[in-house]
Amino acid sequence: MPDFAATHRITHEASMKMLAAGLAKANEIGVKISLCVVDASGQTLAFIMMDGARFFSGRTTTKKAITSASQRLPTGYAPEENVLSMQIRMDGDFTNVPGGFPIIVDGQVIGGVAAGGAQLEEDVIVAKAALAAITTS
Amino acid sequence: MPDFAATHRITHEASMKMLAAGLAKANEIGVKISLCVVDASGQTLAFIMMDGARFFSGRTTTKKAITSASQRLPTGYAPEENVLSMQIRMDGDFTNVPGGFPIIVDGQVIGGVAAGGAQLEEDVIVAKAALAAITTS
Amino acid sequence: MPDFAATHRITHEASMKMLAAGLAKANEIGVKISLCVVDASGQTLAFIMMDGARFFSGRTTTKKAITSASQRLPTGYAPEENVLSMQIRMDGDFTNVPGGFPIIVDGQVIGGVAAGGAQLEEDVIVAKAALAAITTS
Amino acid sequence: MPDFAATHRITHEASMKMLAAGLAKANEIGVKISLCVVDASGQTLAFIMMDGARFFSGRTTTKKAITSASQRLPTGYAPEENVLSMQIRMDGDFTNVPGGFPIIVDGQVIGGVAAGGAQLEEDVIVAKAALAAITTS
Repeated sequence: MPDFAATHRITHEASMKMLAAGLAKANEIGVKISLCVVDASGQTLAFIMMDGARFFSGRTTTKKAITSASQRLPTGYAPEENVLSMQIRMDGDFTNVPGGFPIIVDGQVIGGVAAGGAQLEEDVIVAKAALAAITTS
Repeated sequence: MPDFAATHRITHEASMKMLAAGLAKANEIGVKISLCVVDASGQTLAFIMMDGARFFSGRTTTKKAITSASQRLPTGYAPEENVLSMQIRMDGDFTNVPGGFPIIVDGQVIGGVAAGGAQLEEDVIVAKAALAAITTS
Repeated sequence: MPDFAATHRITHEASMKMLAAGLAKANEIGVKISLCVVDASGQTLAFIMMDGARFFSGRTTTKKAITSASQRLPTGYAPEENVLSMQIRMDGDFTNVPGGFPIIVDGQVIGGVAAGGAQLEEDVIVAKAALAAITTS
Repeated sequence: MPDFAATHRITHEASMKMLAAGLAKANEIGVKISLCVVDASGQTLAFIMMDGARFFSGRTTTKKAITSASQRLPTGYAPEENVLSMQIRMDGDFTNVPGGFPIIVDGQVIGGVAAGGAQLEEDVIVAKAALAAITTS
């Protein structure tokens, strides 16, 4: 068995593209959100809170990005009856609120990106716009 | 796009007026409460706990003020089935108990004020009296 | 006495300009850093960690920005013999390492910006470049 | 031996008098400070941060009041070589910076009051003015 496996990491150029694309989409649809990019270990790589956003959105958005990076799924997948227990088991970092997406490169999850602070559908639109700014073939 | 947006901050004169008006109303209706004023980012600007108040009220009242400052709404707006999950997502600082109000000046939320420790209706009466002590056209 | 005092807050456009200018300068001088922008109460508004940066730099840089926002001075002003005691008194958020600057508009501190993770002189150069990207007459 | 000992507690009327007197003195000498009143157990009873004060002063001032209530002395009494160790042993709540005073009634310490955020001599002047607002014969 090999000692190491090839992977990729998110550059800050990619992070800046995601922030900029997310902000552009948020402005276009007229919402005030926070955006967060985390790496494969859930560590914050980039963050922005829009002027006028609810400041709790900084925390909830970061948790969406962390959840997607760990669980390798868009947030919102869990059956509702499991959510509270999962939140506690994952030390409060798990969230089931849509708006977080894994960043997948060559079939591997290398991080997560999320938007939060608006309506759920709007958060999803903004996060998808951020994700679309990078090439994740 | 502008680098800065005009806003206001709460002076300590305003904070003292809110504490005094809240205490006067609490004495008038015969309740023992805590009062808290926070700024637009949730930082405590002023606090008082009445002689005879339950000391947990210091914590719960501060959370009401923080929640109103972040969410830009009086506390108590969330559907009850969402509350536990929201409390965890917002690191324990969110509360859905009435008695917190945003402080709005020129259409912008610049902080929050809250009362806690009595019955909910009484907390609301006291917090509204505190808010009414300042001019928030 | 007035209830409110006029001030400004940092828009996300300004935050993005600071991140971009700091990254450009870091690339120019060949260093890997983190950048952080906080508001007048020390709340994080924007953050980026460069690909290749030491990940502790995320924490130390945020503390530089918070310290400058609170103390209204560039970081590094304290006599060295006072620093450890100040760090404890300020709950670990105070830092005396250069690289943090207050953001001053109309004579008022409305936030802080900082760079960290390289040599001190390099951190200062990058943070100054970030600050210079916005108009703070 | 009796089961209980007679003592006094600080009313909110007394706390408000101390806040008001401290603010008046701070305005008179032209400084921006935080003020804190704690009870005999170190619990915060009243707090105010002046508009324009360094926000770290909220933390450092509260620690001054707690230290005086516990140690039954004005802050600043410890030999400098002992301070760091004492800060750590007391979980970061001990401070040796002047500006905190015990509140003594009938020979018993029933709380503490402190000012912080200006020069040490100014903090002491403001805290003494706050203390002088109540009768502690």
